[in-house]
Amino acid sequence: MQPKQYKDLDPSPRILLGPGPSTASPRVLRAMATPLVGHLDPQFLALMDEVQQLLRFVFQTENELTIPVSGTGSAGMETSLCNFIEAGDHVLIAINGYFGERLYQMANLYGAQVDRLERPWGQVFDPTEIESALKKKKYKLVALVHAETSTGALQPGIPEIAAAAHQQGALIVLDTVTSLGGLPVEIDAWDVDIAYSGSQKCLSAPPGLAPLTVSDRARQMLRSRKTPVANWYLDLTLLDKYWGQERTYHHTAPISMNYALREALRLAAEEGLQARFARHRTNAELLWEGLEALDLSMLVPLQNRLPTLTTPLVPPGVDELVVRQRLLNEFNIEIAGGFGPLKGQIWRIGLMGFSSRPENVLLLLSALEHILSKS
Amino acid sequence: MQPKQYKDLDPSPRILLGPGPSTASPRVLRAMATPLVGHLDPQFLALMDEVQQLLRFVFQTENELTIPVSGTGSAGMETSLCNFIEAGDHVLIAINGYFGERLYQMANLYGAQVDRLERPWGQVFDPTEIESALKKKKYKLVALVHAETSTGALQPGIPEIAAAAHQQGALIVLDTVTSLGGLPVEIDAWDVDIAYSGSQKCLSAPPGLAPLTVSDRARQMLRSRKTPVANWYLDLTLLDKYWGQERTYHHTAPISMNYALREALRLAAEEGLQARFARHRTNAELLWEGLEALDLSMLVPLQNRLPTLTTPLVPPGVDELVVRQRLLNEFNIEIAGGFGPLKGQIWRIGLMGFSSRPENVLLLLSALEHILSKS
Repeated sequence: MQPKQYKDLDPSPRILLGPGPSTASPRVLRAMATPLVGHLDPQFLALMDEVQQLLRFVFQTENELTIPVSGTGSAGMETSLCNFIEAGDHVLIAINGYFGERLYQMANLYGAQVDRLERPWGQVFDPTEIESALKKKKYKLVALVHAETSTGALQPGIPEIAAAAHQQGALIVLDTVTSLGGLPVEIDAWDVDIAYSGSQKCLSAPPGLAPLTVSDRARQMLRSRKTPVANWYLDLTLLDKYWGQERTYHHTAPISMNYALREALRLAAEEGLQARFARHRTNAELLWEGLEALDLSMLVPLQNRLPTLTTPLVPPGVDELVVRQRLLNEFNIEIAGGFGPLKGQIWRIGLMGFSSRPENVLLLLSALEHILSKS
Repeated sequence: MQPKQYKDLDPSPRILLGPGPSTASPRVLRAMATPLVGHLDPQFLALMDEVQQLLRFVFQTENELTIPVSGTGSAGMETSLCNFIEAGDHVLIAINGYFGERLYQMANLYGAQVDRLERPWGQVFDPTEIESALKKKKYKLVALVHAETSTGALQPGIPEIAAAAHQQGALIVLDTVTSLGGLPVEIDAWDVDIAYSGSQKCLSAPPGLAPLTVSDRARQMLRSRKTPVANWYLDLTLLDKYWGQERTYHHTAPISMNYALREALRLAAEEGLQARFARHRTNAELLWEGLEALDLSMLVPLQNRLPTLTTPLVPPGVDELVVRQRLLNEFNIEIAGGFGPLKGQIWRIGLMGFSSRPENVLLLLSALEHILSKS
């Protein structure tokens, strides 16, 4: 072991305009550096309460069971499925991108009988399509993605789909990883049962926590399970007691990550949700206009386009990877490429949270113009 | 939402002498505040390699599959079981405290036929006891705790137990949550197959990552499973590809937590393992001497006592909770109480990582003397 080979941590000053993580605010970074208290310290227990209140604010819900899961967004997805699925349950998954596929894989893993409803990547579902599927067969749960991180598409009609699910006695699970904190996510008004997100997208905290909210309807279903939850770390019957009044020890909460999430949520509360959504929208429109001026067209039509993640098509003859590498190496700008069926065909440009700033848009457009004009 | 009710983060300057988290070094806190790069940035991929190398150093292993699991120590425990257990497998758990009980619960959850080998909390097993149990019946896996955080006991004879397990074709899982980085943990020399820990104990990073190492023998067994791993987030067949050469996307690694863990491990490498273990031992001996001078006796006899976590018995007539509250409120010192069968009977005093300092020992002894003389 030659410790000197491990140099001081000194990463390049990246401007994070990919699908997440987004750039964290200096205030959030300072919160991360705050000295630790113990996870059972009364001061930390009070902070847990505040994080829960602030999460209810961004989810626009009164759900008591609203917590940050101590893992990344994928852990939030798994929590949302494994607690509500028992072997043999019938589950419907709407799939129009990578994260729909992942929901499908996880639901299968927990022994559900899973039906797939599919749309090509980049498209969205007509809500009536999902409603009819829910009428044809009795499901325990339907899961879909609000904002598809792999395509940039925004699924409309969530309240209608939720109503259709409830008419048939099904729960609705919604992936809000790339929407929460960047565009309206109205859990109570839409009557969504279970929603999860990631800390590192439109909330601009570092990755490592998964905001989650569970309706009383879903909580009742959890309590009336016939079999134990088949996952210990993500078991909401235990997590509910840890985050609730009882404070029954389950695991050691990631103290610093909760410091960071609290600060990120406090920033959202200070800004106000409507102002925050308007900012994301305005900066997205500035980006779209600029991309069109560079003769780039978008994968997703305007009416279903996410303001938080834009997916321009790569022009014929351009190597998308070379462009991304030049953005990173010459200008410290990170954007992402497509994957799966969209590999090589799109870029994915995130304007999320602290990264959603007009100066970032102008810089990116200018750098893209510079690179594309010479490629 | 009245954002102003959420004040600036300003926790009291606690001295963390409980069973974890320990106090993080200022260098680790500064690393946490480092601006983020993306999780697929070449600079982050290089950092992942470094974290793996440094983890191999503290685990004293060449195991290729050595990673930080993106969750707390309990997620490390679950990873160590769910990947190697298939329904119906015979598993032996040695239980002499809370974390042995948790191993038992988790092994059951994954459908194992679990046998319990028990000792009262605070005692350790005679290694021959476990060896005989392994001879009586064929097991797929035996799991035990090296350093019991609930009692302060250190299990001796790990190499002998590992050899006995391997003679019968069983894997050995070792909980090193309260030992890794504070006392010798020699994965290769002891021939341990699977070991896990937590970032927030003797490594003194914040909680949120679980160091894990897996022997080639166990990795082969993982690859020859008949059924898929019954957990998506903790599935080592996927995590192995994410942390390995292929870098196949699985989840978004917690960037800042990995920054912190790297810095904490770098501190361990700079200090050197032998010097680090000697420091933990010396400070523990200073504590033991001082506690005995206060007429406190220890739950665990000297030969099995952890240097990282000391568990004095609460004297008759003393309310242990009042003492802890006074330590916290008057002196900003955190220690913990006992729980389960040891509730009210012991204190748990951690001297781990950055918290293992002679000035902390003298302060704690002085504060305890002050409080006990008036109680």
